[in-house]
Amino acid sequence: MNKNFLISSPPMGWNSYDYYDTTVNEDNIKANADYMAANLKEYGWEYIVVDIEWYSYDAGTQRDKHQYIPFWRVEMDEYSRLLPCPERFPSSANGQGFKPLADYVHSLGLKFGIHIMRGIPRIAAHNHTKILGTDKTANEIASPYSICSWNPDMYGVIPEDEGSQEYYNSIMNLYAEWGVDFIKCDDICRMDAASSKKEIEMLHKAIQQCGRPMVLSLSPGPARIEEAWHYEKYADMWRITDDFWDDWRLVLNMFERCELWQNHVDKGGYPDCDMLPVGMLGKGFADEHMTHLTRDEQITMMTLWCVFRSPLMIGGELTLLDEWTEKLLTNSEVLSLLTFSHNARQLVRDSVHCVWYSEHKVGDCKYLTVFNLADEERVIKVSPTIVNKETFVGLKFKELWTKETFTCENEELSVKIPAHGAKLYKY
Amino acid sequence: MNKNFLISSPPMGWNSYDYYDTTVNEDNIKANADYMAANLKEYGWEYIVVDIEWYSYDAGTQRDKHQYIPFWRVEMDEYSRLLPCPERFPSSANGQGFKPLADYVHSLGLKFGIHIMRGIPRIAAHNHTKILGTDKTANEIASPYSICSWNPDMYGVIPEDEGSQEYYNSIMNLYAEWGVDFIKCDDICRMDAASSKKEIEMLHKAIQQCGRPMVLSLSPGPARIEEAWHYEKYADMWRITDDFWDDWRLVLNMFERCELWQNHVDKGGYPDCDMLPVGMLGKGFADEHMTHLTRDEQITMMTLWCVFRSPLMIGGELTLLDEWTEKLLTNSEVLSLLTFSHNARQLVRDSVHCVWYSEHKVGDCKYLTVFNLADEERVIKVSPTIVNKETFVGLKFKELWTKETFTCENEELSVKIPAHGAKLYKY
Amino acid sequence: MNKNFLISSPPMGWNSYDYYDTTVNEDNIKANADYMAANLKEYGWEYIVVDIEWYSYDAGTQRDKHQYIPFWRVEMDEYSRLLPCPERFPSSANGQGFKPLADYVHSLGLKFGIHIMRGIPRIAAHNHTKILGTDKTANEIASPYSICSWNPDMYGVIPEDEGSQEYYNSIMNLYAEWGVDFIKCDDICRMDAASSKKEIEMLHKAIQQCGRPMVLSLSPGPARIEEAWHYEKYADMWRITDDFWDDWRLVLNMFERCELWQNHVDKGGYPDCDMLPVGMLGKGFADEHMTHLTRDEQITMMTLWCVFRSPLMIGGELTLLDEWTEKLLTNSEVLSLLTFSHNARQLVRDSVHCVWYSEHKVGDCKYLTVFNLADEERVIKVSPTIVNKETFVGLKFKELWTKETFTCENEELSVKIPAHGAKLYKY
Amino acid sequence: MNKNFLISSPPMGWNSYDYYDTTVNEDNIKANADYMAANLKEYGWEYIVVDIEWYSYDAGTQRDKHQYIPFWRVEMDEYSRLLPCPERFPSSANGQGFKPLADYVHSLGLKFGIHIMRGIPRIAAHNHTKILGTDKTANEIASPYSICSWNPDMYGVIPEDEGSQEYYNSIMNLYAEWGVDFIKCDDICRMDAASSKKEIEMLHKAIQQCGRPMVLSLSPGPARIEEAWHYEKYADMWRITDDFWDDWRLVLNMFERCELWQNHVDKGGYPDCDMLPVGMLGKGFADEHMTHLTRDEQITMMTLWCVFRSPLMIGGELTLLDEWTEKLLTNSEVLSLLTFSHNARQLVRDSVHCVWYSEHKVGDCKYLTVFNLADEERVIKVSPTIVNKETFVGLKFKELWTKETFTCENEELSVKIPAHGAKLYKY
Repeated sequence: MNKNFLISSPPMGWNSYDYYDTTVNEDNIKANADYMAANLKEYGWEYIVVDIEWYSYDAGTQRDKHQYIPFWRVEMDEYSRLLPCPERFPSSANGQGFKPLADYVHSLGLKFGIHIMRGIPRIAAHNHTKILGTDKTANEIASPYSICSWNPDMYGVIPEDEGSQEYYNSIMNLYAEWGVDFIKCDDICRMDAASSKKEIEMLHKAIQQCGRPMVLSLSPGPARIEEAWHYEKYADMWRITDDFWDDWRLVLNMFERCELWQNHVDKGGYPDCDMLPVGMLGKGFADEHMTHLTRDEQITMMTLWCVFRSPLMIGGELTLLDEWTEKLLTNSEVLSLLTFSHNARQLVRDSVHCVWYSEHKVGDCKYLTVFNLADEERVIKVSPTIVNKETFVGLKFKELWTKETFTCENEELSVKIPAHGAKLYKY
Repeated sequence: MNKNFLISSPPMGWNSYDYYDTTVNEDNIKANADYMAANLKEYGWEYIVVDIEWYSYDAGTQRDKHQYIPFWRVEMDEYSRLLPCPERFPSSANGQGFKPLADYVHSLGLKFGIHIMRGIPRIAAHNHTKILGTDKTANEIASPYSICSWNPDMYGVIPEDEGSQEYYNSIMNLYAEWGVDFIKCDDICRMDAASSKKEIEMLHKAIQQCGRPMVLSLSPGPARIEEAWHYEKYADMWRITDDFWDDWRLVLNMFERCELWQNHVDKGGYPDCDMLPVGMLGKGFADEHMTHLTRDEQITMMTLWCVFRSPLMIGGELTLLDEWTEKLLTNSEVLSLLTFSHNARQLVRDSVHCVWYSEHKVGDCKYLTVFNLADEERVIKVSPTIVNKETFVGLKFKELWTKETFTCENEELSVKIPAHGAKLYKY
Repeated sequence: MNKNFLISSPPMGWNSYDYYDTTVNEDNIKANADYMAANLKEYGWEYIVVDIEWYSYDAGTQRDKHQYIPFWRVEMDEYSRLLPCPERFPSSANGQGFKPLADYVHSLGLKFGIHIMRGIPRIAAHNHTKILGTDKTANEIASPYSICSWNPDMYGVIPEDEGSQEYYNSIMNLYAEWGVDFIKCDDICRMDAASSKKEIEMLHKAIQQCGRPMVLSLSPGPARIEEAWHYEKYADMWRITDDFWDDWRLVLNMFERCELWQNHVDKGGYPDCDMLPVGMLGKGFADEHMTHLTRDEQITMMTLWCVFRSPLMIGGELTLLDEWTEKLLTNSEVLSLLTFSHNARQLVRDSVHCVWYSEHKVGDCKYLTVFNLADEERVIKVSPTIVNKETFVGLKFKELWTKETFTCENEELSVKIPAHGAKLYKY
Repeated sequence: MNKNFLISSPPMGWNSYDYYDTTVNEDNIKANADYMAANLKEYGWEYIVVDIEWYSYDAGTQRDKHQYIPFWRVEMDEYSRLLPCPERFPSSANGQGFKPLADYVHSLGLKFGIHIMRGIPRIAAHNHTKILGTDKTANEIASPYSICSWNPDMYGVIPEDEGSQEYYNSIMNLYAEWGVDFIKCDDICRMDAASSKKEIEMLHKAIQQCGRPMVLSLSPGPARIEEAWHYEKYADMWRITDDFWDDWRLVLNMFERCELWQNHVDKGGYPDCDMLPVGMLGKGFADEHMTHLTRDEQITMMTLWCVFRSPLMIGGELTLLDEWTEKLLTNSEVLSLLTFSHNARQLVRDSVHCVWYSEHKVGDCKYLTVFNLADEERVIKVSPTIVNKETFVGLKFKELWTKETFTCENEELSVKIPAHGAKLYKY
């Protein structure tokens, strides 16, 4: 309730990770921003997010051994704050940081986001570098025992120690100066570290004091349902699964997670189903490929994300988008659920199908979403009783992907859906 | 969504357990029903619930060794259905079951409830007794491996087996004939047994087919938050803690549980904080005593239960109610939150205080609840920002326990609260 | 140390389970005893053990639904003691119990064993039947909460209660009267029930007071290594894995378990690798078949069991033994390790091979056992350093399966072994 | 079996930790060595061990915040190998390392030991320093994810990586040059890190290749009983509990651990009960005090350690030893059990008493040890049956602490023992 309500609907944007991994550079970001401004912005897409290790030299050059090269050179200022690697982000040279790039993105009418890791650089702790706004040095606030289990860059900070809040303040102040709109903080959402809850609060405080509204997005999941209140109080979005990729089993798993979190989608706080692995993916992982999800599976994914009202972050390289995928991402009627629907509820879920219900925020318009989770085409019958109706006879339906409209002639709604496919009805 | 919406607000009533344990009899029930009709009914109290082992002979006679005497005589019909023990419920003789007693309760304008254990009597399985509506016998549907960890009376049923749904149908049909309004099913809510989820569905189906609306209440807790959707779909109320008694540590623990479940309080489905251990308690446990909760602790308890909108079941013997306790239970303005408030949210909780917010369903009326969790009197300051206000200056407050009204003169609301006490403001 | 040292080497015998499951009868037992006396006795085989549910009527007749029919008829005396089902064991009629059959087995110069389940029959508890030597009745000593997770026949007893030790005494006295030499008690070794440790002590006491030496064998495993001292103090043998069958993966797993328990093989107490699934198996399971272990795998199994000094219980039907299998079971030099070797130690184990070392109890004779765990034939080199020698040159070896002898010409011993095979050298 | 059998009985010595924590210096070591040579050597005491962080500057100066100051200055050579801090160990200057101090200890007829942490210094990894004998640098063999949970100095090494074995070889070669006799490696015995098992093997290999026999002692416990074979194969001693201090509850707990490990005490491999917290303790912890164990508790401790045959390492400052404590540590008859007894077995253990039995390696001499675990004096009766005797009548006993001798006149041995005390009989 005391969170700054900067977002009234789930954020929509593009994130560099799924295509570039750690290798993304300034040209890549600009190219994707250009594409978004020209082709997607009108549909609501607006965030451009630079994902992990933008501060690292040689990122991605030891991909056979390391995703993240340990003990390697990073760009850092005298106050223990990471800066963009100037070899990859030339405009950041001379202490400019991400300001020039953020300015560029803003000039296109878009918003600019960055990824950070929980904590303070390990090298700062070992080198006893300074912290802005306090006499304490990095070694005094870093915990040698609080590390990330999959990235070697940082130590967590000790919440109680003087200097820790100052450090988080100092980085958020820097990001505010740069013009950052969106912070994706990693190694924190799953609360692997004992200090995670406190560090989430510290990040929140640091953003509040910096004077610029910035979305706080927490990774990686699965978030802990028993800490739902904490996420809602201090963050804007939080991941509800581990990394999501183009694999049907992960889509299936997301149905479980959405069931679990459906009561926690609220104004200003959004459980996050993670990026949409559509189009061309994996170049930075040395595995460039078109998404392995079938078209029906992608429709299922988009339908679930939209009815559930997850944030939407495109993972595929925008400049390589094919026509079909771009259509998938620019269906205005479907996307409108993010902003204009509410009270989404799962009505039924078993091993072969799932039904969700939702309502338009104003007026009588309702949504009924039917998913075929089976591995073959099926005719699924939906009883009117599950939406507290006696019958569907005479009701007009519009399917929002096909734009097909019809008046129901039977008590039940009978729907033929391909394997792993979905129908999204407005009535 | 397809549950029968028989209750639009949390049930309010009296339950025999806290005072009588397994020893309750017909006279006790009638006396409490008489008292409720004469003194409490006008405030919304309406359920009279007979708790555990009404079918057992000699219940309570081996209290030094057993709460529930194992392998003992129970009253049962030829169809493996437990009946009231006629020595304790004389009106049940000659196959009348609870019908005469239910009729009596109904004649007072009240509703009648009973407690059951998940499953089928062990003795029925060993004796191969019949099941109504099927050729199967009890031994064929009982699982020898599905037992309750604390009560020796029943075996769980095997969900897939023919005859199992028929058995649950047969008992619900009997209860409907008796005129039962409320079923508290035990050994099921915590899902200790692998078949628990399926048995909850079977109970729900059995009630739906029986033709009489009956509230389905699940015990004991803690319910599993990750199964929230399942409880909401199939039950009317479900316990969110293990047995609650008159111990401040359990009250404190309830604040954690209410935080966890606050998003799941909905029309027709209520997380249940368990009975109110007020007044005289424990006779059946050979420990008759006035509640150990202080008056302030009782006010805290009633306030939390009401703002959270838990079902309210009085645990103390009604005929022994003192004046103070009866006042506690008949504060109309406080009780009205059960029916007329919604969107209750915990705003703050730490080791020394907690603040909840709620709204009247119609109009602009709001509620602000401040709890002092510390062991000494404290002045607690509530900032207007937590309810998205700039200031409290000029706002009129009414405290619903003291009826005191005042206009706030400061930005913050400053409240002096005794140890373990609470203030419930309407503004 | 205060256990009766009736066995100075691991027991060898035959058990009815692997072939007959619950269906074994008097004729089957006699036929196997006859065969053992005629063909195997001279090699040290001596126990004939009747496995599970000899007291049950209709055992095995509902094999599609139940291995053990729940709530079914069992033969029991007035003192809650199970008796052989007279339909399957006719000589047991008129209160004779297993005495006539034990006498028959003894007349062949063999020993007689039976299987029991931990606890007292459920039906005895429900029917309040008597217990010999006490006024207590079965319902007073049975725990309604102590059940076996896979067999429905019994309730565990309450260790502290008067009458419990008397019950165990009464059954052991009966078995002593029958002439039983070996008790395999099930549902106890893994200590699934809280009372398991106490019940093991009670069984031990009951045997000690009965006046007849009887081997106490505990099932099923895996036994808990942290309770090794307890098993050694109170039992003669205890299972170190769950049920062992004719599957190479289970053989591989046994190497891990033998590593774990190698320091616990002692005079009078033996970690038990379970029955040898050789020859014809599975008739009672409706899956009659020749063992699925290859010949090399069987040699590996016999070698490991013998060098480790596990009890040996043949699982296959003796009357159907083929010549090769009988040879496997009657290699005197290999079997002699059970009695005459000691100090067996695993020297090496990795994913492809394993080496064990052992010594003859008297004299200088040593054993070196080499196992090929890989899925293809391999040449395995054994360094002399692992047995604290400088070289193997000039040492004479005899392989006990092939009887091949040779003098080593190289520093290392170089052994070609088929996939999953073993060599057992004496030197 | 292929371990170098350098120790035929459990090591006896003194360790700097209990008194000095991280602050120990050259003078302290010399003073304790002098004392040992003059007063204790003749009783078998011979090891002088320098415990944790001898390489750290300013160790112990931030004791209010840190036991181990994180990210602080350490003494290290160009090959990533830690050296003694010259401010604390002046003789180590100019690359002499511990050689001068080891020489001094050796000149007294004693042996010299040091403590190390698993892994390679963190600072070496961050600074990419060299490793002797390979082109790899520290950053290439250090794992950023393998840290100790309580000490901030090191990263574990990656077992598979080229350079890792070379690193361990290089430190053991250095220690061999110094003349080290005993290596206590920490953060490894409990196998907290996934690589622990491999690192134990690497340490063993490194010692074997260095050409000098050095005892390998593993800390901290509890060691994993299921890995007993691994410890026995690769180490000389391994801790069976977490840090042991002067607290009776920890003594009680040691009885459980000795029960567990009693079958694993063998020539060359010793489960380790940890240091003896006797005399003056805790100065480096800012808590200097005489041991909190009563005299009877100390007798119990010494008796258990000796009959079990644990290594003995004195924790108290030797130069401050009082007369009583020195007597406790120099009872030749008690200490002789370390070398000359074997086959120690726990015979009985319950909540109030415990009995151990052991035998002299040659001849008929036996030991019977009786512990009173209760909080008051008790008369404990020991039945002759537990040592397989019919009676104790006529047997001569000598109690090794009091030197009292007597001939038993009763069947049972009846012993009065003070609270928490012990009697150690030879017969």
